[in-house]
Amino acid sequence: MSSVWFKKHFLRSGSAANPGSAESLRRGVEQQLPAAPLYRRPKFLRGVCSGERLPGRRPIYCPPRDKPLQWRTGYAEVINAEKSEFNEDQATCCQISVRRREIGMEEEQDWLILCSNQYLVGYYWALFDGHGGPDAAIIASNYLHYCIKQKLEEVVEGITEAQPPMHLNGCCICPSDPQFVEEKQIQQEDVVIGALENAFQECDEVIGQEMEATNQSGGCTALAALYLQGKLYVANAGDSRAILVQKQSVVPLSSEFTPETERQRIQQLAFLCPKLLAEEFTRFEFPRRLKGNDVGQKVLYRDYSMAGWGYKTVEKADLKYPLIHGHGKQTRLLGTLAVSRGLGDHQLKVIDTDIEVKPFLSCIPQVKVFDFASCNIKEDDVLVLATDGLWDILSNDEMAQIVRSFLDENRTDPYRFSELARCLVHTARGKKNGHQWILDGNSPASYDDISVFVIPLYKRDEDC
Amino acid sequence: MSSVWFKKHFLRSGSAANPGSAESLRRGVEQQLPAAPLYRRPKFLRGVCSGERLPGRRPIYCPPRDKPLQWRTGYAEVINAEKSEFNEDQATCCQISVRRREIGMEEEQDWLILCSNQYLVGYYWALFDGHGGPDAAIIASNYLHYCIKQKLEEVVEGITEAQPPMHLNGCCICPSDPQFVEEKQIQQEDVVIGALENAFQECDEVIGQEMEATNQSGGCTALAALYLQGKLYVANAGDSRAILVQKQSVVPLSSEFTPETERQRIQQLAFLCPKLLAEEFTRFEFPRRLKGNDVGQKVLYRDYSMAGWGYKTVEKADLKYPLIHGHGKQTRLLGTLAVSRGLGDHQLKVIDTDIEVKPFLSCIPQVKVFDFASCNIKEDDVLVLATDGLWDILSNDEMAQIVRSFLDENRTDPYRFSELARCLVHTARGKKNGHQWILDGNSPASYDDISVFVIPLYKRDEDC
Repeated sequence: MSSVWFKKHFLRSGSAANPGSAESLRRGVEQQLPAAPLYRRPKFLRGVCSGERLPGRRPIYCPPRDKPLQWRTGYAEVINAEKSEFNEDQATCCQISVRRREIGMEEEQDWLILCSNQYLVGYYWALFDGHGGPDAAIIASNYLHYCIKQKLEEVVEGITEAQPPMHLNGCCICPSDPQFVEEKQIQQEDVVIGALENAFQECDEVIGQEMEATNQSGGCTALAALYLQGKLYVANAGDSRAILVQKQSVVPLSSEFTPETERQRIQQLAFLCPKLLAEEFTRFEFPRRLKGNDVGQKVLYRDYSMAGWGYKTVEKADLKYPLIHGHGKQTRLLGTLAVSRGLGDHQLKVIDTDIEVKPFLSCIPQVKVFDFASCNIKEDDVLVLATDGLWDILSNDEMAQIVRSFLDENRTDPYRFSELARCLVHTARGKKNGHQWILDGNSPASYDDISVFVIPLYKRDEDC
Repeated sequence: MSSVWFKKHFLRSGSAANPGSAESLRRGVEQQLPAAPLYRRPKFLRGVCSGERLPGRRPIYCPPRDKPLQWRTGYAEVINAEKSEFNEDQATCCQISVRRREIGMEEEQDWLILCSNQYLVGYYWALFDGHGGPDAAIIASNYLHYCIKQKLEEVVEGITEAQPPMHLNGCCICPSDPQFVEEKQIQQEDVVIGALENAFQECDEVIGQEMEATNQSGGCTALAALYLQGKLYVANAGDSRAILVQKQSVVPLSSEFTPETERQRIQQLAFLCPKLLAEEFTRFEFPRRLKGNDVGQKVLYRDYSMAGWGYKTVEKADLKYPLIHGHGKQTRLLGTLAVSRGLGDHQLKVIDTDIEVKPFLSCIPQVKVFDFASCNIKEDDVLVLATDGLWDILSNDEMAQIVRSFLDENRTDPYRFSELARCLVHTARGKKNGHQWILDGNSPASYDDISVFVIPLYKRDEDC
């Protein structure tokens, strides 16, 4: 199993046993209490962010100016307003070099990770938003790109030809194999999408094994952007969001996966496998939790097969807690989780029960593809990736307006994308007013962790 | 159960035991052989279409000019080129009056079906494309509108107020009930959508019971359009299609449901309930059926969680027949069916096995809503509903071009929508050349049954 391989090569030396890992940081925290807790930050912030929490303050951190990120990418982050003692967001930004493996070459050999023109070079950005602690997000931020590299290398012959071969080794057992592949309209990009899907699954397994071995818990969302061979692949599992901002248009490159958006999938699973609810939950959705005196009445409801609403005569069993309950940001799966896709949460159970949440979660991302060949990218066109802390405050259009006016007013600043990321985070974090964080109009600002990448897309190949 | 109620009120006197029903027609056919088979046609064609097959000929039938359909709707149909001895398409066009039931009023009382201003009046058009015989399509064409009427009447209090009440009887057990409904953004139209979804399910049950009782078999697709309270609801289960054609735009109002478009849902069910495949099928998709010498090779594949393609090392179990196999129109579910949603097929088994197809089928339609208030409908704007016989030959844009130029050239003809329907059917049927049916460019025409409604949308309320 390749997850075993991962474990052997990376995990013991790279995460839990590492002096900088979440586990050892937490141990450190326990020993040092009541000193300010340390929390692990993205590697590229080193030297800027202390990883120490400043009580009552929420400074915004950007990478150091003398160590710019690839493509002059801007990044900024801020910790939550004491919702958690850690910043549960994590971020990664790196190149991924995909090596064509020689047949018979052993996996045991060391990988070449440095960029090289002999290899297929990809550019990778990812955001992870942890829940139940930062541990899953830390492991994912350290390993998802290795999983992607590995999965791409496993199918490299399928992504270097315009039409992927039926057989990976290129042999042609049936003379019309190319025709079968063409009839199914299978293209290079479909194999990259498959590799990304499999990489998320692999990373989820690694997290499960690692968390179990080290007695850690929690999960995280994952939003990853990969630029490869002239196309941008955006893979999303959770409620972060990626948006392409152009002069005239705003193109969403991800959808959110929450108990609300995935209601039908989740309810259908409960219908097919009712044991998963242990007779403690009802799979039906109602506008509110039902009460004893609703019994016998006809009330609004939805089942798994319905996009619309019907009326159902309430039975006693309908008084159980609903599988999906609440509305908007407050919607919870099994009263527990606010997202329906992501990595980790293998041990998560509904409080005081043996009911597992994991069977209802999916670790598979939805992958959207943006082909640069189909679009004339202009100078100020950027891709913005951000965790839900930003999107709780800014709509896509509000964000796009800030992006356009900021870049227009800061034409010459070489750090403009970094400053723009800072400006976006600053807007959503707001200002402190007494014990509250408020926006300009006095409405509440985001109390969540906020992380933002601003990735300039113009002349993207010149920096490589 | 309301399906029992249906049976009692309609089925025994309205379908199988009726002199015009499929069953009695078939009995008649058996007695009269080798005379030309009779097949049941839509009621509104009476006097025009003999219901008798003319060997080697495919005349196009339209409703009689002295009995125009509601809204001056055009309709035309043609039988297949001897693919089946029956025309498996069926059509219905009628008003649906939805009565507000008095509380305590018994279901036993007769329904008022005539249009009346005291009632909510809906306009209904539907196409059904049968497979394995015309029986399911005939029952559906006779009863789906009753199911819709019944389901709408059951929730009429929910569709006559802008915001549906939490409790159907209007009582307010919790003072903030209206707020809960508002937070969930539940509107009138959601309750109509729910009623349509439930009506399809009800009709499917009726068909199942009726087919079992009369030893009939087969299934059908269903595409239904309902105009109610200023909105058009298009409910689709199968591979028929509804398109709104306007001067400047072509708006699809349905999506097709086939083993290809519903691959992931079908594969996931097989993953969760592997017994359904009885170890005779593999749930994986491959570009072609695998052979013995593919074993051990890495070949292209997709599983339920994948939108992309990966490579899988072939095992012996992968040589089984695939759950979904073929490409394009040839794609089959369990080697048997070309559609994945529809009504009927309760007894359908994979040939020579005990494997049931029905668990993989869905009878739930997808409902799309078009709100006339949001769009300025012009004189020649029409809704076109057609079975796959038309869409196999014409793309949406080609169809729209014919619609626009035909209506432009026939401004004054009072039968222009009927003539347009005839023109569309004629285009897809082509001409006979020897034993073949060909298009103008000599390519093959449609050999299938073809049925088309052309529904003018301008000043739609004037004819009511």
